[in-house]
Amino acid sequence: MMQKQWVLASRPSGAPQVDNFRLIQTQMPTFRPGTALVKTLYLGVAPVMLRYMRNETVFERPMELGDVMAGRGVAQVLQSDCPELPVGAIIQARLGWQEYALIDNNQYPKPFILPHTDLPVSHGISTLALSGFTALVGLREIGKLKSTDAILVSGAGGGVGSQVAMVAKALGAQRVVGIAGGQDKCRALLSKMAYDAAIDYKNDCLEARLDELFPSGIDVFFDNVGGPLLDLVLARLRRRARIVICGGISEYLLEDGDRYQYKNLQNLGRQDAKMEAFFVYDYEPHFSGYGEELAAWIRAGIITPIEHISEGIETLPQALVDLYVGANFGVRMVRVGDAS
Amino acid sequence: MMQKQWVLASRPSGAPQVDNFRLIQTQMPTFRPGTALVKTLYLGVAPVMLRYMRNETVFERPMELGDVMAGRGVAQVLQSDCPELPVGAIIQARLGWQEYALIDNNQYPKPFILPHTDLPVSHGISTLALSGFTALVGLREIGKLKSTDAILVSGAGGGVGSQVAMVAKALGAQRVVGIAGGQDKCRALLSKMAYDAAIDYKNDCLEARLDELFPSGIDVFFDNVGGPLLDLVLARLRRRARIVICGGISEYLLEDGDRYQYKNLQNLGRQDAKMEAFFVYDYEPHFSGYGEELAAWIRAGIITPIEHISEGIETLPQALVDLYVGANFGVRMVRVGDAS
Repeated sequence: MMQKQWVLASRPSGAPQVDNFRLIQTQMPTFRPGTALVKTLYLGVAPVMLRYMRNETVFERPMELGDVMAGRGVAQVLQSDCPELPVGAIIQARLGWQEYALIDNNQYPKPFILPHTDLPVSHGISTLALSGFTALVGLREIGKLKSTDAILVSGAGGGVGSQVAMVAKALGAQRVVGIAGGQDKCRALLSKMAYDAAIDYKNDCLEARLDELFPSGIDVFFDNVGGPLLDLVLARLRRRARIVICGGISEYLLEDGDRYQYKNLQNLGRQDAKMEAFFVYDYEPHFSGYGEELAAWIRAGIITPIEHISEGIETLPQALVDLYVGANFGVRMVRVGDAS
Repeated sequence: MMQKQWVLASRPSGAPQVDNFRLIQTQMPTFRPGTALVKTLYLGVAPVMLRYMRNETVFERPMELGDVMAGRGVAQVLQSDCPELPVGAIIQARLGWQEYALIDNNQYPKPFILPHTDLPVSHGISTLALSGFTALVGLREIGKLKSTDAILVSGAGGGVGSQVAMVAKALGAQRVVGIAGGQDKCRALLSKMAYDAAIDYKNDCLEARLDELFPSGIDVFFDNVGGPLLDLVLARLRRRARIVICGGISEYLLEDGDRYQYKNLQNLGRQDAKMEAFFVYDYEPHFSGYGEELAAWIRAGIITPIEHISEGIETLPQALVDLYVGANFGVRMVRVGDAS
């Protein structure tokens, strides 16, 4: 039996391009003792994947040219010799960009079961998996969110950003402001993603809008962007502010010589503030609990995942490329197959 | 009865100068119900005081020209109508630069008693008060110190810095590297302050020494300096590194237009690291416990406070000025009077 698989054809010099990938037909993996054979249902894309392609991460196995592109997704177990991964179960795991995968329970990070059979399987890419967990960990564990905090989110229309205001509200926040590019996205921030105000970085004067919306400064900044915007926020921190570094998409594309130079970092010291990045897998022991909390908020209507789904494994490279030109909206994913 | 008092004569444009202060003779404060009259024994100086003089802090009452210079010290209670501050007690409090002060138990931060009558009173300026607490909070609460961490300290010969290696060792650290200016200071780091290696920023090539001493990068950076040095460290962070922002003396003297621009901040995100400043008074409920811990380590010989004491209230401005030209060594303080 043959399957389709996307392999890395070349390394991107700037943003990823569709032709950095090559679609191949390859033999389906053969089931072996100690493993589980799974069928891919959905695959997610995220900005961090550019760093896999460039071998820039310090936590992923290096990718060579010709390797199947790395990525997580939702799958159904077809055959299994792992007691933790029973046949028929819907799981979240490192699958790679392919229709079928052979996984085991020793791989890191471990696969986990999605027990929420009453909710759409696609939520296993959005709120009930890494991107939802990232919003929750960032706000609660890193951001130490308090209900009275003045909260700002960059990349607010993106995969994680589209969930941050809803998760913040679930945690008691009163008011969340989002930054996104374009009027359509900004309208959606207000109408679909629970933001209370939106800043359009393509059309608004950023500094004036920040001053208007945060006259007393910012308590929590959930940052997906980095660069000049982060610098403007550093100049507007309140005492004991917390900057949650979730991503820095503005920096991923810069060459070393072009790095943005931050002018306002010393305000961190002046305001007794903190700036913290995190590795969501460090919270793996809590994933099952996070899934339960988030599922309960979805059932209660507090969180409505915004999913941007394209059809067919063929669409994966374009889905990733879109992230870097701001063409995504909500959690971007690709439907690859159907559950039985 | 008259007393001596230092008042703010002018605001410094760059580093503080001796003539920013004026020594005056003024009436001793008159004891009133609800207060305690105390006699100053020691006063401490710290880099942050420049920010009081410039009204740049966000937490201190503004200082006007002619006001008594703000500062903390150790005093003995002479007369009291505060049950918490009994006559004869040795206390640590905001006294101002004067021989006698009228304090009460409602002022913020609250005065606290130094119960360690077996230890020198001067330790109430160094290890058993704010500078010792700052080392402990910075390493343990902010730095989340682990015994295997590769630890670097800047301003290592200074008031807080001179205690950081000893406190780190008390907390289980195996190896601490300090940065200071000049060969004499660097020798003292090794012989008196429990550092395992010293970098002389005036004579060594900083980058080469950092690469040599931290071939796998830095886990904890306890920073008193900021600026270009902090930027070099940002380029050398290990995964999950923690930068403890204790001070930024290199930045205090810069005009806004001259701010140092950081090139390597994005490594914080890449390494899932954090950078956190703190306000030691947020830990006030723990001060008494910290004092007990630190006193026990002094008695056990694990910590030996390095104190640089000058004699007489007349020497206060020079003691402060010295901090900004790197002429201090250990915890700088002035002996103002004797306990009865």
